[in-house]
Amino acid sequence: MKQNRVEAVLRQLEELGLSQMLITDPIAIFYLTGRLIQPLERFYALYLSRRGNHKIFINLLETVPEDLGVEKVRFSDTDPFLDYVAQAVDPREPLGVDKNMAARFLLPLLHRGTARDFVNGSPALDKARAVKDDQERELMRRSSQLNDRAFAALRPQIREGVSEAELAETLKGIYRELGADGLSFPPLIAFGPNAASGHHWPDDTRLKPGDCVLVDAGCTYEGYCSDMTRTWFYREVTPRQAQVYQLVRQANQQAEDAVRPGVPLRELDGIARELIGQAGFGPNFTHRLGHFIGLEDHEFGDVSSAATEEARPGNVFSIEPGVYLEGEFGVRVEDLVLVTEDGHEILNHSSKELEILP
Amino acid sequence: MKQNRVEAVLRQLEELGLSQMLITDPIAIFYLTGRLIQPLERFYALYLSRRGNHKIFINLLETVPEDLGVEKVRFSDTDPFLDYVAQAVDPREPLGVDKNMAARFLLPLLHRGTARDFVNGSPALDKARAVKDDQERELMRRSSQLNDRAFAALRPQIREGVSEAELAETLKGIYRELGADGLSFPPLIAFGPNAASGHHWPDDTRLKPGDCVLVDAGCTYEGYCSDMTRTWFYREVTPRQAQVYQLVRQANQQAEDAVRPGVPLRELDGIARELIGQAGFGPNFTHRLGHFIGLEDHEFGDVSSAATEEARPGNVFSIEPGVYLEGEFGVRVEDLVLVTEDGHEILNHSSKELEILP
Repeated sequence: MKQNRVEAVLRQLEELGLSQMLITDPIAIFYLTGRLIQPLERFYALYLSRRGNHKIFINLLETVPEDLGVEKVRFSDTDPFLDYVAQAVDPREPLGVDKNMAARFLLPLLHRGTARDFVNGSPALDKARAVKDDQERELMRRSSQLNDRAFAALRPQIREGVSEAELAETLKGIYRELGADGLSFPPLIAFGPNAASGHHWPDDTRLKPGDCVLVDAGCTYEGYCSDMTRTWFYREVTPRQAQVYQLVRQANQQAEDAVRPGVPLRELDGIARELIGQAGFGPNFTHRLGHFIGLEDHEFGDVSSAATEEARPGNVFSIEPGVYLEGEFGVRVEDLVLVTEDGHEILNHSSKELEILP
Repeated sequence: MKQNRVEAVLRQLEELGLSQMLITDPIAIFYLTGRLIQPLERFYALYLSRRGNHKIFINLLETVPEDLGVEKVRFSDTDPFLDYVAQAVDPREPLGVDKNMAARFLLPLLHRGTARDFVNGSPALDKARAVKDDQERELMRRSSQLNDRAFAALRPQIREGVSEAELAETLKGIYRELGADGLSFPPLIAFGPNAASGHHWPDDTRLKPGDCVLVDAGCTYEGYCSDMTRTWFYREVTPRQAQVYQLVRQANQQAEDAVRPGVPLRELDGIARELIGQAGFGPNFTHRLGHFIGLEDHEFGDVSSAATEEARPGNVFSIEPGVYLEGEFGVRVEDLVLVTEDGHEILNHSSKELEILP
């Protein structure tokens, strides 16, 4: 068990008026134990309590390390495992459950009156996870370093006639060769007008001179996600493409420069949006500036005009302004940014200069 | 909407004492509407009622075909969409929900008393899905035909020194080239002693003469899964390997031969298990004989000693006996079988002869 993380979650639970929580999301359990178990449809849960009687419920079919640092309750498929949960839970208190808990477990617990009430306790987990500790910061750095190297290895593979889908496969192979343990999400690669569509997936479109090449991709390293976007131009660039590129790059830069503890997240979104709006492309910046990231590509917390939080040391989020011109091209420039005690650290180091690929 | 499938689910709901159900599983909704929408964390649900006032709840951010054949309720992220659900549900009756419904939707519906009670209604869906209609049978056939072709294309790629992971990547590429729309599950490829381990994933193990080559893989075609296993031998085979191979092949064949409407599923498992047991390998056949399959690789229904159902026309399940000898090798032979009105149809046509790869 990662004691500091367990304590952070318990503090957040207290703010929600909760003294206990039952967590079934395997990623959330990994965050708290450091061990990943993917139980598929089987029951798997971590019980946390302010009384300190934490327990982890694990099917006998799973291999479990000895040193989990929390009491294990093992059971077979035919054992009444929800009885064992009921024995641990304090029935006089409400029970937090995670937002993804499946009805097939939640309904029986509810019908037998396992707790006084059942409450979505995920905000406690989400708020703890939004503040990365030193170990997590280092893993986020390494994941983004891998991503920088992957983009560098991908560039020489960008040739006339290659398809988006082929390039996406190439990138996946590069991640594997570099030792990434997985993908943050399937690579998004779009040429020319395809880059202007928010819902485009790599297809058989083939690269031709004058196309923009938008690559939005990331890998995982010990579970932690990277996520970066670069937009290049193939062989030639029009003045309009260059103008839009420099605008988006500047919006990315100015928003990143403003990241420091205490800055309202909506202010970061505002900086990028105002710059793009003044240039007349406001309606073409169709999404929020960024999202929080960590063990999942999109974690709780966003950098948008609706955000109510301030940046805090340990937050990691994307800064990814974009301008999308339907039927023409699209540009997005994205880095991950870590909020430090006195400012920020950009986790990506790939060049953001306007680049015309040979 | 697929009216015959909706009616099948409503009939099954009636047997559970339910007159209405709210379904959030995207695969289950695809089964009933023929349209796949993946809403990620957004709310997306199909409401079915014996009163006939079916409704589908879809976020405005999703693109939706006009001809869904069911009343659409659209909403934005900030609309009170659970109010709209409450307006549709009959509060005097219990409400079936699917087994995977997330707590973040279920708890608010529960707390506001949307229905008299909430019940896991998934058995109604599962039982309807276990009986494939003509359209589904045809898609299952085509998916397995693709799988046969993929295995045939993979064989010439099996060479000394190739790694399991490389071969798995090759197979994925073959599925793509053949026009499969996805994988049923990541291909499982194991050489030599690795094939004796139930939990082995393709790694850097390299092929050498004398190894068995176990390939367990499948693709999807219009959403429907194939799943086949073949075990070959590379360059040479020992008498013991050949003996075990013929035993497993015979167990597969005898169980398949017995498939017809009305046969108890546990009897099929018994046929294979008895044959393997008589040869002295009973303890080495460590899993059930088969599982149901369709829009998901593992669907509700199994072919095991604990199964209580009989085979019914339209059922599709795997027949996959195996013998695993730790430290030595493993053999599994798997086909998909469709129960027809008067017997069965094997969906795979790849050879099951003992084969020594050159």
